[in-house]
Amino acid sequence: MRITGTFLDEISFDIPHQNWGREEWDCDFRAMKAMGIRRVILIRAAAGNFMTFPSKTIGSRGTFHRPPEDLVEMFLDLAEKYEMEFFAPTWHSQPGNCIDWSKAQYREEIAVNRELLDELQERYGRRRAFKGWYLTHEVCSNQPGTVELFRELGSHAKKISGGKPTLISPYFAGVKAAAATLDVNAPVLTPEAHAAHWNEIFKAISGAVDIVAFQDGHVGYAELETYLAVTRNLADRYGILCWSNIESFDRDMPWRFPPIKWEKFLWKLESAEAAGITEGITFEFSHFMSPHSMYPSAARLYDQYCRWCALPARSRMFRDDF
Amino acid sequence: MRITGTFLDEISFDIPHQNWGREEWDCDFRAMKAMGIRRVILIRAAAGNFMTFPSKTIGSRGTFHRPPEDLVEMFLDLAEKYEMEFFAPTWHSQPGNCIDWSKAQYREEIAVNRELLDELQERYGRRRAFKGWYLTHEVCSNQPGTVELFRELGSHAKKISGGKPTLISPYFAGVKAAAATLDVNAPVLTPEAHAAHWNEIFKAISGAVDIVAFQDGHVGYAELETYLAVTRNLADRYGILCWSNIESFDRDMPWRFPPIKWEKFLWKLESAEAAGITEGITFEFSHFMSPHSMYPSAARLYDQYCRWCALPARSRMFRDDF
Amino acid sequence: MRITGTFLDEISFDIPHQNWGREEWDCDFRAMKAMGIRRVILIRAAAGNFMTFPSKTIGSRGTFHRPPEDLVEMFLDLAEKYEMEFFAPTWHSQPGNCIDWSKAQYREEIAVNRELLDELQERYGRRRAFKGWYLTHEVCSNQPGTVELFRELGSHAKKISGGKPTLISPYFAGVKAAAATLDVNAPVLTPEAHAAHWNEIFKAISGAVDIVAFQDGHVGYAELETYLAVTRNLADRYGILCWSNIESFDRDMPWRFPPIKWEKFLWKLESAEAAGITEGITFEFSHFMSPHSMYPSAARLYDQYCRWCALPARSRMFRDDF
Repeated sequence: MRITGTFLDEISFDIPHQNWGREEWDCDFRAMKAMGIRRVILIRAAAGNFMTFPSKTIGSRGTFHRPPEDLVEMFLDLAEKYEMEFFAPTWHSQPGNCIDWSKAQYREEIAVNRELLDELQERYGRRRAFKGWYLTHEVCSNQPGTVELFRELGSHAKKISGGKPTLISPYFAGVKAAAATLDVNAPVLTPEAHAAHWNEIFKAISGAVDIVAFQDGHVGYAELETYLAVTRNLADRYGILCWSNIESFDRDMPWRFPPIKWEKFLWKLESAEAAGITEGITFEFSHFMSPHSMYPSAARLYDQYCRWCALPARSRMFRDDF
Repeated sequence: MRITGTFLDEISFDIPHQNWGREEWDCDFRAMKAMGIRRVILIRAAAGNFMTFPSKTIGSRGTFHRPPEDLVEMFLDLAEKYEMEFFAPTWHSQPGNCIDWSKAQYREEIAVNRELLDELQERYGRRRAFKGWYLTHEVCSNQPGTVELFRELGSHAKKISGGKPTLISPYFAGVKAAAATLDVNAPVLTPEAHAAHWNEIFKAISGAVDIVAFQDGHVGYAELETYLAVTRNLADRYGILCWSNIESFDRDMPWRFPPIKWEKFLWKLESAEAAGITEGITFEFSHFMSPHSMYPSAARLYDQYCRWCALPARSRMFRDDF
Repeated sequence: MRITGTFLDEISFDIPHQNWGREEWDCDFRAMKAMGIRRVILIRAAAGNFMTFPSKTIGSRGTFHRPPEDLVEMFLDLAEKYEMEFFAPTWHSQPGNCIDWSKAQYREEIAVNRELLDELQERYGRRRAFKGWYLTHEVCSNQPGTVELFRELGSHAKKISGGKPTLISPYFAGVKAAAATLDVNAPVLTPEAHAAHWNEIFKAISGAVDIVAFQDGHVGYAELETYLAVTRNLADRYGILCWSNIESFDRDMPWRFPPIKWEKFLWKLESAEAAGITEGITFEFSHFMSPHSMYPSAARLYDQYCRWCALPARSRMFRDDF
């Protein structure tokens, strides 16, 4: 069980920005590579008034700043320099992190994003590192529109790109979901109820979505393995590859969010392994696991993980010259 | 459009302290100078039980700790060493950040602060770097007492100091004001309503207040230019110099406050420039833009800004020795 | 008045983890030693699903992860290397930081912790650095069960260990207690009411508890000396040694928690001294006062404290190479 991929959350809505330029990102990709990361996933094409690239599709739907740097191009350049795979994102056109899954709204989400997928393919489709698609929407259960959204966007993305793989990263409707979504009424699904919802979803999106990597932070540590095993079995049944999104930030602390405690991260790695999952991605390296993070404890998490993998990589020596 | 000044928030009520001594402040003033800052503005004379200097005026009005270092003297020393201008503050004698603008209260604010202005003039008036006054109270509209407070304190400050310029830094009653003031009922003023309020205020305080620099963080990015242009036009009409207080902290994040995303800061610089404003101050350098900040992303903001200005200044090299 | 001890909060519920290994902890113990710390107090044996050592007592009462490192053993090793005293903790078996002091619950707390004390004594009792016990429960007043809990656990700990000293660290039911306990109805006790409660408690636990060190962060700065003096006088009366737990984190900031402002820390040192207290411990060094903390302002607090003590110790030079 290894972390082989990370999200790129440079275009963020709730994670502070690190204000890196190309030079700093180059350093960070080198650190990723040294830790075994070979896949980077841009989490969303835009957030608020900010875009990752000067997109006609997005720019025509509100007031957006022209990005001082085309992040898609920059990340593709670095992915090629370090021989990594880049996954291109879609966009959450509704404000906030959740949308009202009314017919009209998910229809609009699909229409906007079909156009965005075409624009991304046209601008960047020929780049060597462009290896897959990430469908940005985060869901936890079979609400109206869920399967339509992923089936239509996944199929379209594959069709226009010669079948490049598509990835989604849902979350478990677990005991921490209410806090995470700031919705006190968020229902909790038992592993059985979770399985019922996702059996329907996987059945319907099979063929359009190739890989699923559930966020692993919304359930208790002791029950994570059960949720992951149930999910992995269902994914196998429908021919969907199952990874785990092993979150590297800590959901149990009074502020959102510091890097996670190593032992929690280790427990989640062990739970994924016990559930028969062999590959992990993380949200996300640069803030929460990087030697360059604005949070120094992220550099220590990097060291702990590298020790556990018996990798020589090591963040700069611990300061002891006082 | 350049940042030529910064607040000094060492005496803070909601920003964590960095625990710097004179040696660390000296380093930080050197970094300010290298970025083009030539003006420092002490934000308030006291906060809670803590004073920036051993003030008779303030000390007689509650229980205060005797400051281990006279910060006014220290900042004047450093301003002289680095050839900067120092603006001396007034004091918010009421608890919290907002006061009930009832007649009695603003009368008391005026009385206390006239005495404080005299004390500051007597203690520090002859210092070479002492170049102006900052009237600490933060307002957004024409409430009872607003014009009396600024007119009386501004006139008094100028009279006793041979006409040294006076500065205020109000905030826009924008969409983010409710969150900022923790007052869910804070009214939002459209640019037109804002203009109506400030036409009255500027008319009344003209001659007593020389410079206005609105905090630019309480409105949406897309509407900032409009609010700034309206304000600059009004200020011109009444002979008040209009700067912008380009906040270097991010108001959109889950915790209060990390350094701001460079692209947001850039957008605000561009908006001020488009509104015909040529000079900016920031709240504030040492926590949110400094190579020495407790928040490493502040050093990157410093680098991004210096690159944008084509300045050679650069924070220490990015760590890449892992 | 000096800081001679610190809690170890590596097993934390509300403080982010720093992800240190043995090597980093070794550096940090060296920094503690250089500052005059000669005593380390492990704050709790377990928190949530995580244990400081593979405990049969705790492990049999829920689902716990097997710790990748035995922290009790590691801290004992380092305490011996640096010639410090180690205090072993008990455990808060109820979720959260407060328990319902109903008879049943405190009886259960006592039963579990008698067993835990025996296990700790058996595993580590012969270690040279094992010099005392810390009774983990935090209380502020004479609720049902308070005296029984401390009297029974303190007596048992001393009995099985040849009379090793026992320490408690209660908190004042002051103006900041409601915010700290997240209980808006937390009653505030005046110094007189506080004295009435603690006269009863000290009378009852005298002989079972040897040392009391109140957390000093729940009252206003101006009233701290009074609360401390009242407490110290009562402790003297009942033959209990009185220290102060001088918190090194700041309770007045919008996020929980940054390192404290040096002047606040200084005021609390002065208040303890004025109350006739000569020894202090802090919660806690490694996050809030250490040159190695994830919060760079902690390194500055370390420097300020060392300057105040005229100690040569100094965190690494301030970065000025921008």
